[in-house]
This record gives sequence, structure tokens and C-alpha cells, in this order.
Amino acid sequence: MLKQWNGTEKPSDEVLTARLQTAREKLARQQMQLKEMKLPVLVLVEGWGTSGKGSSIGKIIKGIDPRFFKVASMEEPTIEELRKPFLYRHFVKIPEAGKFQFLDSGWMDEVVEAKLHQDLSEEDYKNRIDSIKRFERQLTDNGYLVMKFFLHISRKEQQKRIENLQKNKDAKWRVGKKDKWQNAHYDKCLDVYDSYLEDTNMPSAPWYIIDAKSRKWTELQILETLTQGIEIALNNHALSVPLLQNVFPLVPMPKLSDIPLDTATIDDETYKIQLKQLQRRLGELHNRLYRKKVPVIIAYEGWDAAGKGGNIKRLTEALDPRGYEVHPIASPEPHEKARHYLWRFWNRMPKDGHIAIFDRTWYGRVMVERLEGFCSENDWMRAYNEMNEFEKELYDWGAVIIKFWVQIDKDTQLKRFTDRQNTPEKQWKITDEDWRNREKWDQYEEAVNEMIQKTSTVYAPWYILESVDKKYARIKALQIVVNALEQSLK
Amino acid sequence: MLKQWNGTEKPSDEVLTARLQTAREKLARQQMQLKEMKLPVLVLVEGWGTSGKGSSIGKIIKGIDPRFFKVASMEEPTIEELRKPFLYRHFVKIPEAGKFQFLDSGWMDEVVEAKLHQDLSEEDYKNRIDSIKRFERQLTDNGYLVMKFFLHISRKEQQKRIENLQKNKDAKWRVGKKDKWQNAHYDKCLDVYDSYLEDTNMPSAPWYIIDAKSRKWTELQILETLTQGIEIALNNHALSVPLLQNVFPLVPMPKLSDIPLDTATIDDETYKIQLKQLQRRLGELHNRLYRKKVPVIIAYEGWDAAGKGGNIKRLTEALDPRGYEVHPIASPEPHEKARHYLWRFWNRMPKDGHIAIFDRTWYGRVMVERLEGFCSENDWMRAYNEMNEFEKELYDWGAVIIKFWVQIDKDTQLKRFTDRQNTPEKQWKITDEDWRNREKWDQYEEAVNEMIQKTSTVYAPWYILESVDKKYARIKALQIVVNALEQSLK
Repeated sequence: MLKQWNGTEKPSDEVLTARLQTAREKLARQQMQLKEMKLPVLVLVEGWGTSGKGSSIGKIIKGIDPRFFKVASMEEPTIEELRKPFLYRHFVKIPEAGKFQFLDSGWMDEVVEAKLHQDLSEEDYKNRIDSIKRFERQLTDNGYLVMKFFLHISRKEQQKRIENLQKNKDAKWRVGKKDKWQNAHYDKCLDVYDSYLEDTNMPSAPWYIIDAKSRKWTELQILETLTQGIEIALNNHALSVPLLQNVFPLVPMPKLSDIPLDTATIDDETYKIQLKQLQRRLGELHNRLYRKKVPVIIAYEGWDAAGKGGNIKRLTEALDPRGYEVHPIASPEPHEKARHYLWRFWNRMPKDGHIAIFDRTWYGRVMVERLEGFCSENDWMRAYNEMNEFEKELYDWGAVIIKFWVQIDKDTQLKRFTDRQNTPEKQWKITDEDWRNREKWDQYEEAVNEMIQKTSTVYAPWYILESVDKKYARIKALQIVVNALEQSLK
Repeated sequence: MLKQWNGTEKPSDEVLTARLQTAREKLARQQMQLKEMKLPVLVLVEGWGTSGKGSSIGKIIKGIDPRFFKVASMEEPTIEELRKPFLYRHFVKIPEAGKFQFLDSGWMDEVVEAKLHQDLSEEDYKNRIDSIKRFERQLTDNGYLVMKFFLHISRKEQQKRIENLQKNKDAKWRVGKKDKWQNAHYDKCLDVYDSYLEDTNMPSAPWYIIDAKSRKWTELQILETLTQGIEIALNNHALSVPLLQNVFPLVPMPKLSDIPLDTATIDDETYKIQLKQLQRRLGELHNRLYRKKVPVIIAYEGWDAAGKGGNIKRLTEALDPRGYEVHPIASPEPHEKARHYLWRFWNRMPKDGHIAIFDRTWYGRVMVERLEGFCSENDWMRAYNEMNEFEKELYDWGAVIIKFWVQIDKDTQLKRFTDRQNTPEKQWKITDEDWRNREKWDQYEEAVNEMIQKTSTVYAPWYILESVDKKYARIKALQIVVNALEQSLK
């Protein structure tokens, strides 16, 4: 793309000024429509050093109400960020519905820098590209407008700018090592940038090359393209998206109704012995994975009153509190609801070496959100693939991912509900909502069956915990976790 | 994709039969909705030899009204087709609005076969992939549903099928050389198929891998995916599409109002001499390009009464009638209107060595269709890029592309209109529509300026023919054609 690019013809100053005025007014009008339509806009500004990325953003935001946008500059990843999955620091920056997020460089910069300095093998680079394409597609599929600009200048122009800045005492600091290195290796950089743009140029989130030879002209090109993109996105409200086929290997799963529950029991004596043994072993493994920096994600889903809480407790009892966190997941807060539904989970990703336990998870999308109509059919049908992709991202980062479905039958639930209702100190545990959900048992069962069929990948499989006998379920959970950690620490 | 694929679990016969019933009924209902919503559906069935492509299509169409679908089998290209652009034989097969087109193999087969047998260099392969991605994107951008299936079987399964067919006297003929070759080179084929699927797996036209181990199961997978795709596409009616940036190098063009017309004249004597010389030269070149199999496309656009007809005549006078065709382009016929707007032009592509002259062209999209509201704003704004891509396809095929804008001023048009009105034998040449168009002169001028700015690529530039003096315009046209042909025959 960049290599074929033959520049633009800059209009006369008069025309430029007039068009700038028009474009600015258009953007000012659009910000209100975006707000109303709840459309989030992510504007990624990449480009050569000294091409004016920051100053262009600075000019464009002048016309936007400060409540409606944020700007972030890409810095070197912090030590903390380096311990998170590659996409983490980018995903957490996505805008809220109805708002702009401007990024002065983002994931492109990170990847091309690594490629230029041979920090990424060909294969790792390819994986990064796949991650980025999935990330951007997940955003656009979920109603985000993603506008990607690359500010282009020639080697000569860059050299001139560097020299001019260096001559100026007050601006000198603005020339970084990176700018000089780029200029000295311009052709090499051009190659790498060009293939990156080609590789990530998707029709739903295409690249726009901006001829950055003059400031005003740069601003105008960005403004005109941006407002055009917004106009189109506003037209495309409530769009459905083609469902993609799962491409990840799956583990075959039984139907819930085929799982025998009565025989899954353990006697008290064995329980006590095994619990002690397994917890001791888990504690040891926790230390080892902390040192080896293996991140662990344990996801719990299951029927109300199935015994998730007690099960989680038997895990955490064995863990060093500095090395794990339990995330109880309730309905999303307004600021969470205003973003991609995976955002609040990306935000809760542990550092490597740490364990994150989720008491209810992102799978709410294909259970409660599906059945209560909190999202469209297209949304939840697409979600199976989005979750497999999400977990693939975590797996590629090095995470151990364990997903538990805590299973009981309908009668057992009734018994436990009634017990809770009749026991004063347990009454807080039972709500009207629990009873309402219970009425939809069959629909939930169908949804759960579909979920475990479609999202039990080899790298993030589901495990059924038969929990009519809660003790049996606890021992089984501990065994599975211990086994998985032993495997990963081999 | 294929390589990661780990198959599916085939449901029990009972479940299979029930789901088949449901899916068939759904498709039967959908065909009426498709008809009503005018949605065209292209179903591409690719896959291994003996995987059951043809028989699957055969079963699926049983539920569709024969008026609503067509089936085409990919054959070896005819000699005639080999003389057309690569996409020609595929583009002409796209369905009408509201109808299905099933393809038993298509462009994938053609490209992977060529790659497998080393008939395509790496670079040519990459170009083919780009062409295909643009082709499919142009279809989906213009409201087509494109469903792509790959029928997958293992080497063993294929071998078994080949052996069984060969044992059976009546079925023996169905095993082709190609099937056996594939089976003997299964891994090599798998590699090539896998990269093709990866390379062309776009979110708007994704690949679906079908586990073709059993006939019924194959049919069900296709049916369920197809009906799901249709459901989503029906929801997405009147969708807008992001505008892509032009990636092809452009020639800067003047504004129409900046082109001096008065000084562009020629005296009769010079005209006669030059006309004769140029026509003789053009005749010679026509013979040479016929022998060298260079295709030539000459496109005429211009104001009403600008003198297109007479200009074209001076070209054709010099040509051997067996080697050229003039295509007068009027409003599209109903069967043309029911397809992608470029379809009728793809259909009129010359064979190599031949000249096609278009009297009005595909640029109607950004002039009359734009100004009369025959297409949406998103449609015509997207069209500049679509035309550059279209012409790039022709250029890559080897075509010489010359585009003329025949320019006069408003007064000259008035004079010619009045003259036509007052001269009985010329009255047929002037209609009420001409007068109506004239009232929109300024809007047309703006549209034409935008058009020539945005679509004057280095490989298919616009030339302005100053035609207040028609003779001057004729000589200029002849000179440009002669020069371009000489260049290409060097």
C-alpha cells in the first residue's frame, strides 16, 4: 500500500481553509449523533516519527466536547503491562459507547518495532497479526467504528524536520532516538510498515494513508475521512454480522442430561484425606507457577445453588492470598455496559504468575444475556467464536485456562432453594430472581449444552463438576486444577 | 484453517433427520423472502475430489423453486474464456437479485490447480488472491450474500471412495485423473488449500469447512450454515459500507473549467491530412495488436451533443470490422439492473487482440446514477474505488485502457441543441431528457470533476477531448489511441 502510494495534490490555501471549516462543523454536529446513537469511535493514528501524529490529534479534538473523547499516547509498556497478554493494554483503552478514543500510536507501533528490531520471529509476527485482526474484527463486529490512519512523509521530509527541530533549542527534546533510527533505516522501515498495512487492511477496518507533508492538509485529510466514516457507521446501526465458523480444535462434550449425578459421591473420610493432600499439593504448585510466571485463569459457571462458592473456597484456602484474586461477576456496571462485553474481563486479567478465579464469567453472554434478550441473537451467536478467540489469546500468552460447569439436577436445586428460604441465616442467598431463573431451567439447559459443545477447545476445555454431592465436586475440581498445573509446569 | 480442523461429531441418525427437516423448511421459507428483498445469493462449493460437491448441491436445490436458482459446474476454461480477463467467466455467473447461484467449484479451484502444477509464480498467485478478495468484497459491498463452503475428507476416506467408485462399472467414469492425483499428493494439496482458505477468509465472505464424511451430514451442515447466513443477510438490508482509500497511483487532472476550448482548433487542410495519416497508422496497429493479442478498451463519456458519435466514427473507420465492437450504453435492462452494476460491462469484455469501444460507460454510476438518485450515496462514493479496481483487473490482464471525456461549454451545447431542434433530419438526436440534463449542468460538472480526479489512474487515465471544434477532438483522440497502442506494442 505505502509503496504504491504516490501522494496527493494539496489544494490551494483558500480551498483548504474552506474545506477545513466544513469538516470541523460536520464533526461538531456528528459528536451529538454519536452520543445519541451510542456509537463508540476508536481513532488510531500511526505513522513516521515527526509526521505530526500528536499535533494532528491535538487539532482534531479542539472541535469535540471534552466529555466525549480521550487521548492516549502509546508509551513503552510498563513492567506491569509486560506481564499481561499482548492485547491487554490496548483492549482496556477502547472507548465507551458514544465517545471517541484517540490513540497516538497503538498496537501497530508495538508490533512493527518488535519486527524491525528482530524481537519477533516470523511465526510470532504472524500470530500477532492474527491477534490484531481478530481484535479489530471483534470491535467492528460489536458496533465499534475503527478508523486507522497512517501519516506518511518521505525520507527527505523527515530528515528536514529532524534537522529543524534539532536547531531549535526548545524543540530539540522532541527528536527521539527512534526518529533518527527510522530516518537512517527508512527503506527498511518502509518495507515493514507496508507489509503491516497490507496484512491488517480489512474492509471493515481499512487503513487510510495520510499525506502528511503539511499540517493543515494532514488535519483536513483526517477530518474528511473520519467524518465520512462516522456518517457511514451511523447509517449502519443494528447491523448483523456473518457468523464465523470455529477454527479451533474442540473437545467433544456430553449433554448435561447424560451425566450421571447420583453415582458421583465421596465418603467423608476419603474427602478429608484427599482435600488435605490436594490442597497441600496445590499450595506447592502455586509457588512454582508464581516463580515460573505462569498465569492461571479458572472460570466457574453453574446452576444457582450448585455450590460454586464452597467449591471456590476449597481452592483459595490452599493459595497464598498475594497470588490470586476472586472476581465475583454480577450484572455489568453502566461504564462496563457501554463497552465491548469482554472489556470488563480484559480488565480483570491477572499478571503472569497469578491466579484469577471468576465466579461467573464472560459466558453470561450466551446464557443470561441470550435468554433475557439483553443482546441480539446475532450477538450471542457470534459470541461462541469470540470467546474461543479470547481464550486463544490468553492461551498464546501462556495461560492455563480451566472452565468448570457445576452441575446439579432440578430437584436438588429445589431442595437447596427451600432450605435457604427456611433457614434465617441463609435467606440472603436466595432471591426472587433465582426462582425466576429456575422457571427457565429447560431453556438454560439448552443454552448450556450449546455453550459447552461450542467452546470446549483443547486449550480451554470445560469440565463438568457433578455437585449433587458438593464434596465430590470439590475434590474433582482440586484434582483437575492440580493436574492442569502439573502439566503446565512440566 | 484446514490443518487445525479436527472434524465434527456427527449427530445420531434420528437427530440428523429431524434437523434436516427443519433446515429444509427454513430454506423453503427463505427463498420467498430473498425474492422479496431482492437479495442475491452466491453459493460456492469447493472441496476435495469425491467429497460430494455435486451431489450436495443436488440435494439442496431440491427444496428451492427452479425459477429461483441456477447451478454451474466449473469446467476447464474454453479457448474463448482463456482470451478474457481471469475474473470474466466468474463475474458473468453472479446471480440476479432474489436468486441463488450455486457453483460446483469456482475461482478457488482454478487458482489452486494452477498453483499445484506450478503454472503460477508466487507473485502471480498473490495477484490472483488480491483479485479474488476484491471481487468477493465488491459483491458483498454491493449487497450480495457470498457463502463459501469447503468439503473436507481425509486422504483415507478419499482413497476408499475412489476405490469403491472404480469397482462399480456404472460409476467408474466418475473417478477423474484429478481425483487420483490429489489422493497421491494429498499433503501437498492440503498445504495449498489451507493457505488459499487462510488468504481469502474475509469476515464479510468467510469460509466454512464442511466435514464431508457422510452425505446427509454434509447436506445438513451446508443447509444450516446457509440458512443462518441468509437470515443475517436479510437483516442487513440497505447497509452502508466503509469507503476504501484509493491505493492506485493517480495522474493529476485539471478542472473542466480550467481547460481552454477556444484555442483548441484545427484548420480543414491539416485536419484532412492528419486524419488520413492517423487512420492509416491506426489500421496498421490494429493488425499488429490482433496478432500480439493485446486487448484494447476505449471508453467515451462527455456532454450531450459534444460529438462522441462522430469521434468514435473516425476511429472505427480505420479498423477492421472483425476486430472491434462498439457498445452503445443506455439505461440497464431489467436483468442487468438485477445484478452488480459492473456485470453488464464484464459481459461486454472483448477477447484479447480485439478492441471494445464504449459509447458511455460504467462511469454512469458516478454521473447519472449519482445525480438522479438511482443508487445510494454510499453506492456511488464507493464506486470510484470499484472502478479503479475493475480497470486494474483489465490492465493486469494486459489491456490498453483509454478513457475520453469529450468536453464542450454550455453555450456550444445550446447552439447544437437548437440546431438539432431546427433541422428535421437531426431532430431524432434531441430529446426532452437532453434538455432536463442540461438544467443540471453545474451538478454534472461537479460530478465529472470529481470523477476524473479520482479515477485517472496511471494505468487507465482520462484524456480530455476539447470538442468545440469537433475536428480537433477527433485528431486528438486518434493521436492518443495511436500513441497508446504504439507504446503497448513496443
